[in-house]
Amino acid sequence: MTHLLIIGGSDAGISAALRACEVDSTVEVTVVVGDAFPNYSICGLPFYLSGEVPEWQLLAHRTVAEIEAQGIALRLSERAEEIDPRQHVVQVCDQAGQRHQLTYDRLVIATGAIPIRPSLPGLDAPGVYCLHTMADSFAVHQHLMEQAPQSAIIIGGGYIGLEMADALTLRGLQVTLLQRGASILKTLDPQLSQLVSLELEEHGIRVRTGQVVEGFERRGTQMQVYTSAGMKYSADLVLVAVGVQPDTALAQTAGVHLGEHEALAVTRQMETNVEAIYAAGDCVETWHRLLQRSTYLPLGTTAHKQGRIAGENAVGGQRLFAGSLGTQVVKVFDLACARTGLTEAEARAAGFDPWTQDVETWDHKRYYPGATALHLRVTGDRQSGRLLGAQIVGHWQAEVAKRIDIFATALFHGMTIDALSELDLSYTPPLSSPWDPVQMAAQAWRPRETKEASA
Amino acid sequence: MTHLLIIGGSDAGISAALRACEVDSTVEVTVVVGDAFPNYSICGLPFYLSGEVPEWQLLAHRTVAEIEAQGIALRLSERAEEIDPRQHVVQVCDQAGQRHQLTYDRLVIATGAIPIRPSLPGLDAPGVYCLHTMADSFAVHQHLMEQAPQSAIIIGGGYIGLEMADALTLRGLQVTLLQRGASILKTLDPQLSQLVSLELEEHGIRVRTGQVVEGFERRGTQMQVYTSAGMKYSADLVLVAVGVQPDTALAQTAGVHLGEHEALAVTRQMETNVEAIYAAGDCVETWHRLLQRSTYLPLGTTAHKQGRIAGENAVGGQRLFAGSLGTQVVKVFDLACARTGLTEAEARAAGFDPWTQDVETWDHKRYYPGATALHLRVTGDRQSGRLLGAQIVGHWQAEVAKRIDIFATALFHGMTIDALSELDLSYTPPLSSPWDPVQMAAQAWRPRETKEASA
Repeated sequence: MTHLLIIGGSDAGISAALRACEVDSTVEVTVVVGDAFPNYSICGLPFYLSGEVPEWQLLAHRTVAEIEAQGIALRLSERAEEIDPRQHVVQVCDQAGQRHQLTYDRLVIATGAIPIRPSLPGLDAPGVYCLHTMADSFAVHQHLMEQAPQSAIIIGGGYIGLEMADALTLRGLQVTLLQRGASILKTLDPQLSQLVSLELEEHGIRVRTGQVVEGFERRGTQMQVYTSAGMKYSADLVLVAVGVQPDTALAQTAGVHLGEHEALAVTRQMETNVEAIYAAGDCVETWHRLLQRSTYLPLGTTAHKQGRIAGENAVGGQRLFAGSLGTQVVKVFDLACARTGLTEAEARAAGFDPWTQDVETWDHKRYYPGATALHLRVTGDRQSGRLLGAQIVGHWQAEVAKRIDIFATALFHGMTIDALSELDLSYTPPLSSPWDPVQMAAQAWRPRETKEASA
Repeated sequence: MTHLLIIGGSDAGISAALRACEVDSTVEVTVVVGDAFPNYSICGLPFYLSGEVPEWQLLAHRTVAEIEAQGIALRLSERAEEIDPRQHVVQVCDQAGQRHQLTYDRLVIATGAIPIRPSLPGLDAPGVYCLHTMADSFAVHQHLMEQAPQSAIIIGGGYIGLEMADALTLRGLQVTLLQRGASILKTLDPQLSQLVSLELEEHGIRVRTGQVVEGFERRGTQMQVYTSAGMKYSADLVLVAVGVQPDTALAQTAGVHLGEHEALAVTRQMETNVEAIYAAGDCVETWHRLLQRSTYLPLGTTAHKQGRIAGENAVGGQRLFAGSLGTQVVKVFDLACARTGLTEAEARAAGFDPWTQDVETWDHKRYYPGATALHLRVTGDRQSGRLLGAQIVGHWQAEVAKRIDIFATALFHGMTIDALSELDLSYTPPLSSPWDPVQMAAQAWRPRETKEASA
């Protein structure tokens, strides 16, 4: 009987536990969970704070009872402090400060990521929050309920920043979004992310780019944010959402190596360099299917996949992680913004010779009521014609997300853009066109010569 | 300079014309169009009759002017009567009864399909309509506007029958749907088509299965429909939508062979057996990618694909039709009903050893408002684990159509059901789950032994 110990009770850890039980009914699984909230949908926190999800308990993918019913032992609110890889022992500390030693035959490290906390004066002032754990959310929720703030500054125009801008606007706050770079939502090319900026501004959000934050200061009930451009912004509440970094401290006590992106290095079987230790999720480097090398791409979908593979392999499986394509989508007010594969800049940096086609079309036959515009960008390699990536922005009910998934499935199989027209996709006038917009975009993709070549 | 003549101005014909011009700027293209309405979206007719599309002119994929601007000559309201394949001549007859001879270097036959007209007494009575051409629609529209019928009987529970049941209900008519077989919507297995029956009944439609129609009779202002079960149904209006058959009469004057399904036999390059004559669309047999043989599967999407290939190859191309998977979707009231690949019965008939898993889940994380139930059926081969087909019924705004397209893209590449979990699909709580429902269904697919084997 294998004793499988898992450190981390979020997406990767619980996926590993469930999969291990599924493929080996004799395995004994213990999961060490740092807080009291195993298997919560961290991606759902903005919708709790917006008020759309009335109770935080609803965010659980599964309840504690459901997990335990699978035969999985949960150790809640215990912190793993150190791993002894020779003795196969992990030292944990419980809420009361008591230390215990847990043994393992196989260990899965799924410690996830922690938010990047810029070292700025005033970051620890009351009224300034990062948003990553359930505890962070409770603190923000308490602030919203007890102090009824009228305005907020959000620092960071990534997914969490945008979802929180939407959430707080829905709550009636006046929101200012500060972004370091020239455009928000760096996962999209500026041609499309500018549509998202417009959407934010149409909903009353002040979007300010090129704002490098230098510090925070409390003035009465307000927080002030200073930026390098000499600007000063004031609001009742400040949220900092400038990205995450892998939580690797525990793994390093066991001698687990980091990769070039400072996350845990793993094989495609999710093994670390240390005997009997696997790792998965936001703490590890991720094999990129298109780049054919490791990258750091922390996503819930990937954490589920990697956890599932780590759990299967920890009980004797041989499954390989097929790789990420960086497929992702975010809803911002009425828009869905999705991407898969590489942007043009990423493709060029990776040594491809990319050409990108912008296409605007309707999500379904225009004669049927309710047609909305889809903005597509398709990137392919000029030499081989191979599909490299796609981006779509459109109405969130215009099947943007699953259209990007058609591109993602095509990318998975290394299709050329030309071959997309061969796909037998569904059509009815209320939902598409005889050539789906995915195929219209592919048919419009006709790389022109480079300026150098045509000169 | 090639002279390309195309007979038929609907999906396949116009696609062929456009593609020929695209790949060969010197080609001279003439399209003979049987009526005055080239390139109309026949699939849109129910939405014109429902009143959702206020003007029939809006149903044009392209206007006559837009087509002619591509350099394509249209001969409207001319009927092609005979082909002389040795002389490369087609005899056409115009509206005034004048006959002309048109020569060609290459000919594309895209005569489409005609509705099956059961030989029943009373079928030609006023108040009984088939629905296929623009002229049919005008006749029904006129009846609706001038006689303000209060009730209708629809014969046939396929796509057009269901869409017209929806359309006439929306107009305020009391609709009765008569279906010959035991369940409507034969493109789905009964487990899912029964959900569609419920949806119809919830919208006030009387669905009557097992009704073999024996005749029609006019009684005052009402039409009566008699069925073999001894039933009699009365209504102000009767629509007959019992399927279509390939229109092959013209092609047979040239000696074009039929295949086993009584449609024109073509190669995967869309060539007929007759020199210089191609054919495409609802008049031809369709290569099935999964069955690896020809079948008869008239669909607008397929007509576009085949027309495009015929047009390209008629001016010197060598493109192969990649094959159909029978991917299709229909909207019925609030439901989208989609399928791709084979049903369990079709898979068994084709020699596979199919196992089908039914899965019910939510279209997105249930904690986010508006989650609706998706009903999925996944069919795979027990021996190889290969995906053979999928069916989904769910709310029409729950990305049912593009989810079936993920299955269709996976089928295109011959994936196993197990490998679907490797696809990197997009996720945000308002639109999906970390494992998309497509992947949840795949993970639930666990074939049990047959009764024989386990006995």
